[in-house]
Amino acid sequence: MESRLAVRYQQIADPTVVKLLEITNQPGIISFAGGIPAPETFPTELVADATRGTPLNLQYSSTQGILELRELVAGKLSREWARQVNANEILITSGSQQALDLIGRTFLNDDDTVLVEDPTYFVALYVLSAYGAKYQTVDWHKPRSLAGAKLAYVVSNYQNPTGETLTQVQRQVIATMLGEAGTLLVEDDPYGELYFGRRPPRPIASIAPKQTIYVTSFSKIMAPAFRLGVVVAEATVIEKLARVKTGMDLCTSAMTQGIALRVLQDPRYTEHLIKLRQYYGRKARVMLMALKQYMPKGVAWTHPQGGMFVWVTLPACVDTAQLHERALGEKVAFVPGYIFRSSKEKSSSLRLSFATASGEEIERGIEILASLVKQTLRGGERK
Amino acid sequence: MESRLAVRYQQIADPTVVKLLEITNQPGIISFAGGIPAPETFPTELVADATRGTPLNLQYSSTQGILELRELVAGKLSREWARQVNANEILITSGSQQALDLIGRTFLNDDDTVLVEDPTYFVALYVLSAYGAKYQTVDWHKPRSLAGAKLAYVVSNYQNPTGETLTQVQRQVIATMLGEAGTLLVEDDPYGELYFGRRPPRPIASIAPKQTIYVTSFSKIMAPAFRLGVVVAEATVIEKLARVKTGMDLCTSAMTQGIALRVLQDPRYTEHLIKLRQYYGRKARVMLMALKQYMPKGVAWTHPQGGMFVWVTLPACVDTAQLHERALGEKVAFVPGYIFRSSKEKSSSLRLSFATASGEEIERGIEILASLVKQTLRGGERK
Repeated sequence: MESRLAVRYQQIADPTVVKLLEITNQPGIISFAGGIPAPETFPTELVADATRGTPLNLQYSSTQGILELRELVAGKLSREWARQVNANEILITSGSQQALDLIGRTFLNDDDTVLVEDPTYFVALYVLSAYGAKYQTVDWHKPRSLAGAKLAYVVSNYQNPTGETLTQVQRQVIATMLGEAGTLLVEDDPYGELYFGRRPPRPIASIAPKQTIYVTSFSKIMAPAFRLGVVVAEATVIEKLARVKTGMDLCTSAMTQGIALRVLQDPRYTEHLIKLRQYYGRKARVMLMALKQYMPKGVAWTHPQGGMFVWVTLPACVDTAQLHERALGEKVAFVPGYIFRSSKEKSSSLRLSFATASGEEIERGIEILASLVKQTLRGGERK
Repeated sequence: MESRLAVRYQQIADPTVVKLLEITNQPGIISFAGGIPAPETFPTELVADATRGTPLNLQYSSTQGILELRELVAGKLSREWARQVNANEILITSGSQQALDLIGRTFLNDDDTVLVEDPTYFVALYVLSAYGAKYQTVDWHKPRSLAGAKLAYVVSNYQNPTGETLTQVQRQVIATMLGEAGTLLVEDDPYGELYFGRRPPRPIASIAPKQTIYVTSFSKIMAPAFRLGVVVAEATVIEKLARVKTGMDLCTSAMTQGIALRVLQDPRYTEHLIKLRQYYGRKARVMLMALKQYMPKGVAWTHPQGGMFVWVTLPACVDTAQLHERALGEKVAFVPGYIFRSSKEKSSSLRLSFATASGEEIERGIEILASLVKQTLRGGERK
C-alpha cells in the first residue's frame, strides 16, 4: 500500500499534526490548541427555528451556490466594502478550506511560488503543497517585493496564528504592490467579524478587487457544521472556480445553505453576532491578564483585537515543540510554532487559543504554562 | 487572468459539460440529461422529524466522520457483504465525488495509468485528470489485463451511463485479476440500492477487500443535499485518506451526518427504500416500453435492472452530439455519448435518465427523440 501512495502524500498528510490534534482533544486536558469555536456560542435556537416550517431543500445545489444566499451575502459586502459586489462574484464552497484547495487547483502549477507569512495558517500550507506550491515568506506588515509569485496568501484580520491585524495603510500598500507585481492575493478572512472593539479596516479585496480572491467562512460566525465558505472575486474568476469545483464535490449542501440563509434573515442574528464578539473579547481579556500575571520576563505576546488566538514568543533558546511535550505531561496543550512555518524549522513561539477553554481553565492553564516556561529558562541558564 | 490558470485547468473544467447541464435544466425542456434523483422520492418527512428534538450537532466533525454513523454503516455492510466491516474501515466524505477526488490525490502521480470503461462516469474522468491520470480503457465484462495500472475505476451496479450490472462471475474474475496485477480498484456504487427486482450481487469489495476502495453515497438513497459519501477500505487506507481529506475541507458536515443518522435509525426508512425502488422501476418500464414502441430498427438499448439510466446506441453513422443539437430544438435533452469517453471521440450512443421526467414526459420525449432519429437515419441514407 505505502509504495502506491502519490509522491505528494508525505507533504500533504503530516501525521504529527493529526496526532497533535488528537492528543489535545483528549478529555482532562486544558486545551489552548484547537482553532475551533466554543459550542456555547452557537446559535442553536436560530438553527432549530430555521429547520422548522418550510421543508429543507434536499436537491443538489448549483455548483456556484444558492442564488438567494449569494445575493444576501453580496448585499452585505456591498454595504461594508463601499463598492458594489454582485451575486455572480460570489461562490459558496464547502467550508473555506475547500476554497483554498480550489484556488490551488485552479491556479497552481508545480513549483509556482506562493508568498506566505512566517508564521501562517498551516492547513493552507498543506493544501497548496498538493499542487506543487513552493513557498517564499513575506512580512505583510512591511512587504518588500511580491514579484515572481503566482499567488500570495494573507490572513488580514486577527491572523492565525498571531492574532495580528493589518492596518489600513498596510492594506493599501499591499494593494498597490499587487497591481505592480501582477500577483494574485488570496485574502483569507475567517475571523473578521469577531472584533472586540472597532471593526477592522476594509479588506484588501475592497481596495484591489481585480487582484484579490477573498475567502471567508460561516464556521466562526454561525457554526462549523454548516461547512460553508464564501469566495469573492471577479465574475470570470468565480466562473472558473465553479467549473473546477464541479469535479471536487459537485456542489455544497443545499440543506446547510438553506438553513444558513434563514439564520442570516432572522432578526435575532445581529444580536447573536454581538454576543459572539463579547464572548471572545472576554476570553481574550482573561488570557491576556493571566499572561501578564504569570509569565516571566523575556516572554512577549500579541494583543489581538479580535479572533481566537494569542501568539506567545519565548526567548530564542526555547524550542516550543519540546515545551509542548512537557506541557502535555501537565495536561496543558497549545500548538508549537514550527507547525505554522513553511520551513518547519524549530520555533520559540507558540499559539494559544482562548476560544474554547473556560475562564478558570485559561487562568490555571496559563499559570501551569508559565511555571513550565520558568523551569525551562532556568534549565537553559544552567547549561 | 487566463494566463495565470494552471495547466490542468483545461482538462478539469470542460465548459461544454457545464453548458450542457445549464441548457438541459431550463424550464420547458423534457430532460433525460440530468443524473439527479426525483425530488418526490426524497424522505422529506423523515428529514423534518430528524431535525426536531435533540439539537443538531453544530461543531466540526472528526475528519473520518461521526463514529455512530460509521458504526451503523459498518453494521449494515457486515450483514450484506457476509464479512466483518469495522467503523475504522469507513470514512465519511462530502459526497462520493469528493471520495474520488481524495483517492486521486492520495494515490496518483503524473502519468499514472487509470483503467476506465468506455463509456464511464465523466466527472470521475475530470477529477482524476486533475492528478495527471492517463486513461486506458477496459471492458469490465471481459477484462483482458489489469497489469501496469495504478488504479482501476468501475461502477459495478447499474453503471453510469450504460445502466449495466456486472454478474457475480464477472466480479469474481475481476477480484482475481486485481490480486494478480496489484492494481487498486475504485468500486463506485451510488446506485446499488436502487434495484427493481433482485438485489445485485455483492460488490467486488466484499470479495477482494485488500484490493478495493469501495465508494457509495447518500445522494440517491436519501437526498443529494446531505452531501454524504462513504468510503470503505482497509483501515490503513482509510487513515491515509482521512489525513489527506483534512487539507481538502477539514471534515464533512456534522449537521448533515447527524440528520442522516437519525433518518437511518427511523423505522420508516426501510419503507422509504422500498418505495424508492418501486418509483424508479416504474419509470424505467415506461421508458423501455416507449423506446420499444417508437424507436426504429437499428437502434439498441440496455435493459437496466436498477439505477437511473438507459444507454441507447444508434447506427454508427449517427453523431449523437449533432443529434442533441436538434433534440434541444425540439425541447428534449439527453447526454451525448462522447461526454462519457476518456478519448472524447464522437459517439453514436447517448444516455437517457428516467429519474426526473414524469411518465407522460418520458413517452412524449421518447416519441420526439425517435422521430428525430428516423429523420437522421433517412438523411444519412440520402447522403
